[in-house]
Amino acid sequence: MPTTPSAQFSLTIRVEIADRPGMLGRVATAIGDAGGTIGAVDLVAVEDGRTVRDITAICSDQSEWDGITAAIAGVDGTRVLDTTDRTFQMHIGGKIEQHNKFPLKTRDDLSMAYTPGVARVCEAIREDPDKAFQYTIKRNTVAVVSDGSAVLGLGDIGPAAAMPVMEGKAVLFKEFAGVDAFPICLDTQDPDEIVSIVKALAPTFGGINLEDISAPRCFEIEDRLSAELDIPVFHDDQHGTAVVTLAALINAAKLTGRRLEEMRVLVTGLGAAGVAVTKILQSAGITDIVGCDSRGAVHVDRADYLDGTMNPIKRWYAETTNPDRRDGRPGDVIDGMDLFVGVSGARVMPATALARMAPDPIVFAMANPNPEVSPEEAAPYVRIMATGRSDYPNQINNVLCFPGIFRGALDVRAQRVTEEMKMAAARAIAEIVPDDELREDYIIPSVFNRDVAPAVAAAVERAARAVGETHVVENSVGYAPNELHVAAG
Amino acid sequence: MPTTPSAQFSLTIRVEIADRPGMLGRVATAIGDAGGTIGAVDLVAVEDGRTVRDITAICSDQSEWDGITAAIAGVDGTRVLDTTDRTFQMHIGGKIEQHNKFPLKTRDDLSMAYTPGVARVCEAIREDPDKAFQYTIKRNTVAVVSDGSAVLGLGDIGPAAAMPVMEGKAVLFKEFAGVDAFPICLDTQDPDEIVSIVKALAPTFGGINLEDISAPRCFEIEDRLSAELDIPVFHDDQHGTAVVTLAALINAAKLTGRRLEEMRVLVTGLGAAGVAVTKILQSAGITDIVGCDSRGAVHVDRADYLDGTMNPIKRWYAETTNPDRRDGRPGDVIDGMDLFVGVSGARVMPATALARMAPDPIVFAMANPNPEVSPEEAAPYVRIMATGRSDYPNQINNVLCFPGIFRGALDVRAQRVTEEMKMAAARAIAEIVPDDELREDYIIPSVFNRDVAPAVAAAVERAARAVGETHVVENSVGYAPNELHVAAG
Repeated sequence: MPTTPSAQFSLTIRVEIADRPGMLGRVATAIGDAGGTIGAVDLVAVEDGRTVRDITAICSDQSEWDGITAAIAGVDGTRVLDTTDRTFQMHIGGKIEQHNKFPLKTRDDLSMAYTPGVARVCEAIREDPDKAFQYTIKRNTVAVVSDGSAVLGLGDIGPAAAMPVMEGKAVLFKEFAGVDAFPICLDTQDPDEIVSIVKALAPTFGGINLEDISAPRCFEIEDRLSAELDIPVFHDDQHGTAVVTLAALINAAKLTGRRLEEMRVLVTGLGAAGVAVTKILQSAGITDIVGCDSRGAVHVDRADYLDGTMNPIKRWYAETTNPDRRDGRPGDVIDGMDLFVGVSGARVMPATALARMAPDPIVFAMANPNPEVSPEEAAPYVRIMATGRSDYPNQINNVLCFPGIFRGALDVRAQRVTEEMKMAAARAIAEIVPDDELREDYIIPSVFNRDVAPAVAAAVERAARAVGETHVVENSVGYAPNELHVAAG
Repeated sequence: MPTTPSAQFSLTIRVEIADRPGMLGRVATAIGDAGGTIGAVDLVAVEDGRTVRDITAICSDQSEWDGITAAIAGVDGTRVLDTTDRTFQMHIGGKIEQHNKFPLKTRDDLSMAYTPGVARVCEAIREDPDKAFQYTIKRNTVAVVSDGSAVLGLGDIGPAAAMPVMEGKAVLFKEFAGVDAFPICLDTQDPDEIVSIVKALAPTFGGINLEDISAPRCFEIEDRLSAELDIPVFHDDQHGTAVVTLAALINAAKLTGRRLEEMRVLVTGLGAAGVAVTKILQSAGITDIVGCDSRGAVHVDRADYLDGTMNPIKRWYAETTNPDRRDGRPGDVIDGMDLFVGVSGARVMPATALARMAPDPIVFAMANPNPEVSPEEAAPYVRIMATGRSDYPNQINNVLCFPGIFRGALDVRAQRVTEEMKMAAARAIAEIVPDDELREDYIIPSVFNRDVAPAVAAAVERAARAVGETHVVENSVGYAPNELHVAAG
């Protein structure tokens, strides 16, 4: 698929240019001819007979960089002094830091924030553990926990290499919802160990965001932690994807005049996302769903189901989907489907097969970076197309969900994230797009729409209250004067 | 012992006062008569016939608060509207927060800090795990780990109630040394579990500060983690106390014209601090040390040593100290001692016993909040007196040590904190007090002396380099242009 220049591949080149007319133009032309798009151009120094400039070249791939620096060097009177990979530069020392809420400048500060005054606060929490939500960071702090076993499209890269993703997640939590998040990358992939470690860490945190843990371990880990902890546990790869997919579907159905219950859906990829998407579609009333893994459509007549080698979650899948026991590859079982949801891998769906879908077909091809079918090839066959990418319309991105979900759950001190809360989040995201603006290429809001997280948080809070999934709510706002009497009474 | 008004017991009282001449004076007098010292007085509102003010009363104990509010209410024409415990107010929502190093406002930001660009950074770390120290928070982030089993003077209050102390520790790390610290309070007190959990957490952190873990478990936990991790592990209750005690002793010896090797030392309290203080005094060349636990002086003829019920660390203690096998209570074995170090509990040493110490006796009575012997009672007998309290001269406080120790260790990427590094830290702290300013009541710098942490860090770095306890040092400064070539080469 044609790739477009992206900031992720931007290179800042420090170049010395002889001080002659038209030189900068020649350098710019060389960069363009070598495939680079020019970003910022800064003047670094002017010395006698030469100028030094920082020129940022935005490329569609890293492989273009050598050619671009060579092209610049090839211009008579120029010299490349240095190059800076802007993406790596942004990561030096990490992307987050710890910040003190107030300075500690005097003995009085020290005697209140630390010893000896802190002892009274500790004792208040010991007497009433609930006060941890008032007088510690617990109330607003989420752990972003990963074992590095299924990171982005990279797979099992381990805990150290997963850190930049978890830090990025923490940046998003803070940026979009004011949630303090801290990355915890665990040097173990044993489900029992992960469960016992996260349970042991719980006193510090108000919520647990599980991230990039491979299936099927992720299902067991989340289920056990949700059952054993009294703070929300949310595996974003499952439920974040499911919520945003449902949000997009709600608007796509509205636009094509369908009722969800009537829709027939094909899902490819039965990992964390595929299973969770299927569950939320079922919660939304959709009954005719066919799921494909790498061996094709899952059903109760399939060999690995019959011989018992199928894993428990897929057995559940086989038993609760594919009522017609359709069999075959994704391209074989797509006939008559209203919606195709791809959470699998690049090019698993031949574009021509989309012609056999029901009228006004809807395709969410979310594999990153390369979708199950490219928007360009799918265009002739589909009415509504969405992907996981930012450079096409209708980006289905978890960022629309997890900051608001946790903001809402923390603010009402929910102990779990229930199905009702997820459904409410999906509806809230869908409703951000006004009916009169709804179009084939605008069914889901932008990830930078600042109205999304607060709307999701408010909807999640309402849903949590409706199902009683709240806990000592006044603790979620700890600022009422009466909260300050604690040691005065 | 007489207590003095302290900000830790400051109460802000919102009081409505009739608008008549001399009223504020009467209120102030009432507060003073009730034992309060007036701090800030703020005007909140002026309405017809009355003013509303916030008056902060600083007390020596919380028990005075009711009397003070009653006294104010007793002044004709006044009404107490509200009271605020300033220490608790300062703790609402916790004392630290996560901060993003840069805003995330555009798709370009997102494509570099998160997906898809972050994938290149993850792969660089997977290929060279060492790069975690360049491109993640690991380089500057320390975990403050506790199980809440021995918190301040409060004892075993559990992980949730320990959080305010660990957050306070994180505040100090950032304030004094720019180290990002994160509190980890573990819901387990099993040494094996704590060791395996901290090992699993290690990918995220560049150092581990163990805190408020009870003896003797703390010794085993630190030893095992130090042996099994490649980042510094430092139990502050042991080594922070030991380093600052040695720093104070270096200056006290200088002031009294002693050589350390000649000194005879009594230590009361053989928990984490007592054992570590003894070890560092031994490293400094002191051989004649007697240690007392709750059963008196420890030696190899003592019943619990002979019958094998003494725990391993105390067996070690008995075998390496008390060459004369002195026996008895602290007050019995103090005869002829040059230094008495108390890290035990209130009033374990009768003041009159100090009369039997060697000439120019030195007493470090560090039990908090009430020392082994009060400075007032000790005054007639001792030449140099130090405590752990901020309201007496010569406060021996770990804050002088741990921020600089970790700053130095992180900056050279030391894998351990060696004896040499601790000794260097002690000497650096002592040297902050210039010879010409050295006095009986000034042997140790103020905790707010901003020169201390940088001096300690520099000394620790030098010591680490001297013993080869460094690792790929150029990674400790990651900002050199050549570090940015990573993906360009």
